[in-house]
Amino acid sequence: MLHMFQSKFIHGVILFSSSVLFGLSNAHAEDARISNPIAIAIHGGAGTISKENFTPEQETAYRNKLKEAVDRGYLVLQQGGTSTDAVIAAIQILEASPFFNAGVGAVYTYDGEHELDASLMDGKTLEAGAVSGVKHVSSPIALARAVKDKSPHVMLSGEGAEEFARQQNRPMVENSHFDTPHRKLQLDKAKQKLNKTEAETDIKSAYQTLPTNFKYGTVGAVAVDKFGNLASGTSTGGMTAKRFGRVGDSPIIGAGTYANNDSCAVSATGHGEYFIRYHVAADICARMQYQDIPLAQAAETVVNQVLVDAGGSGGVIAIDAKGNISMPFNSKGMYRASRKQDEPAYVAIFKTE
Amino acid sequence: MLHMFQSKFIHGVILFSSSVLFGLSNAHAEDARISNPIAIAIHGGAGTISKENFTPEQETAYRNKLKEAVDRGYLVLQQGGTSTDAVIAAIQILEASPFFNAGVGAVYTYDGEHELDASLMDGKTLEAGAVSGVKHVSSPIALARAVKDKSPHVMLSGEGAEEFARQQNRPMVENSHFDTPHRKLQLDKAKQKLNKTEAETDIKSAYQTLPTNFKYGTVGAVAVDKFGNLASGTSTGGMTAKRFGRVGDSPIIGAGTYANNDSCAVSATGHGEYFIRYHVAADICARMQYQDIPLAQAAETVVNQVLVDAGGSGGVIAIDAKGNISMPFNSKGMYRASRKQDEPAYVAIFKTE
Repeated sequence: MLHMFQSKFIHGVILFSSSVLFGLSNAHAEDARISNPIAIAIHGGAGTISKENFTPEQETAYRNKLKEAVDRGYLVLQQGGTSTDAVIAAIQILEASPFFNAGVGAVYTYDGEHELDASLMDGKTLEAGAVSGVKHVSSPIALARAVKDKSPHVMLSGEGAEEFARQQNRPMVENSHFDTPHRKLQLDKAKQKLNKTEAETDIKSAYQTLPTNFKYGTVGAVAVDKFGNLASGTSTGGMTAKRFGRVGDSPIIGAGTYANNDSCAVSATGHGEYFIRYHVAADICARMQYQDIPLAQAAETVVNQVLVDAGGSGGVIAIDAKGNISMPFNSKGMYRASRKQDEPAYVAIFKTE
Repeated sequence: MLHMFQSKFIHGVILFSSSVLFGLSNAHAEDARISNPIAIAIHGGAGTISKENFTPEQETAYRNKLKEAVDRGYLVLQQGGTSTDAVIAAIQILEASPFFNAGVGAVYTYDGEHELDASLMDGKTLEAGAVSGVKHVSSPIALARAVKDKSPHVMLSGEGAEEFARQQNRPMVENSHFDTPHRKLQLDKAKQKLNKTEAETDIKSAYQTLPTNFKYGTVGAVAVDKFGNLASGTSTGGMTAKRFGRVGDSPIIGAGTYANNDSCAVSATGHGEYFIRYHVAADICARMQYQDIPLAQAAETVVNQVLVDAGGSGGVIAIDAKGNISMPFNSKGMYRASRKQDEPAYVAIFKTE
């Protein structure tokens, strides 16, 4: 007991002395916090992902891409970059890959186009940016950042969001830039099924008959930087055969994305409608903060109790300021990876690994 | 003490006996809960609303309209209707009135149009519906209900939402249906100010110079019905001179609207960007549930501490399953009214009344 007191006392004296001696400014004080452990986690979507659906080569290719993305984000953190920079760097690797439902490889809408959603949140300032229904922006997550930094708003949608993108000189592409043959095949299958069941029933019931894999697919990242600041981001093409300008949870701050230094940073992937109604990302942060429970307990409760009871399938990646990571999901698999200071990267796809 | 015990015991015996004698089904069991006190609260927006800005006639007209809306919703509850029906009935009175920023009387976008947002949530089922950026739907709150009940999605936007509205045979109108001269004047003033400051600075800073009254205005209602079920709804024209398909907090489940029988129902009105970042409606419910604190304490903390610290002006109306009502705001005034079982209607505009 005496030892503890002495230790704290000595520590206090040293901190006080160095402040006086070197006249620490706020910026220097922040630099002094570089001892905060850096960490990052990413996901490439959850769903009925089983080992038998992959050739060994395909599985390796997915794992390599997840590793590339988590390493890219980690490198940003290692070089002293912010958690926001790391989140964007990792997500842009996944947006550019045809493997995941974001950017290139995004699913098709009912009308045969791609409408992309993304959001980003800074856990230190609680500033956020989100876009929904953009069709010609090469990196939706980068546009979400521009909304956060350069617009007076948090969320922009559709053609208005694209007008803002052009004003901000964001790289623009044709909608066909996001085309992939395997997603086109998914759309054809979904429409065939929808047209058949819609003839017999109503739109709502028809969509409920779609296999869950048609209902989601998202990419996201969460990180903590050397300053102890959290950030979270999510990017997606939404739901296959979505209609009527459907907005899922990914661009909804509180549902698909949330970050607050006082609790945690979360990026979600799953059947978006449930994730909105249960405001999943913010609820995990709220439980951690208000119930004073660890990150893993909060994330597990929401994903494997609340969402399971409600019938909402999917998962989340979550991180706290200490670098604790939790990646629960209630589906068969979730493309995921994480990397922490002084530890090798963890890359996984299936339930038990 | 003995008396209390006896009373509870007798009550239990009677309930038990009647269940056995009449073989109560679930539906009858719900009917048996008609003792739940009914209550409703509404708002017509918060802002720098001061007595000196009203003629006595104007003030009376506003109060009469608030009274009409709260009475209409209360009548629905009194006649045994659901909280959802009551919320919609009250909001539709406010949408049809030129006094409030929703439906007729909605503010103008930068491009001189009206883009309307609304959302609705059922606290029993946690089902929700939301629309953003609709231009030709006469009652956005009724469309939000159709999204909840008839679509496979929670949130629809823009032209897609209108396509859904037409499919559902919702009444459609010209955009000019929502025109009012006083809102046009507000747009002209806002654009004059924006064009001047944008020449000197950037878009973000320019919008920050707009008076707070240009940043919001919303209508909403929360209610509890005789079954003890909560509902919440919000409808708005958004922010004067909004651009780029801006989406505010009103159609965001968790930000502008939330309802959960386990905690409370909330409808918010204020500077939407802050209400999204602080996921205000769901946060009030989360604090009540996870911190086990009364409704008023949760609502007051979020509106008068969290939002004030962040610089986010506005207010909320909130109700719990016992019929407790809280209507805190941190602005000069908030158009508001409430009515509880066996109590006269309360109608107020300014801070101290």
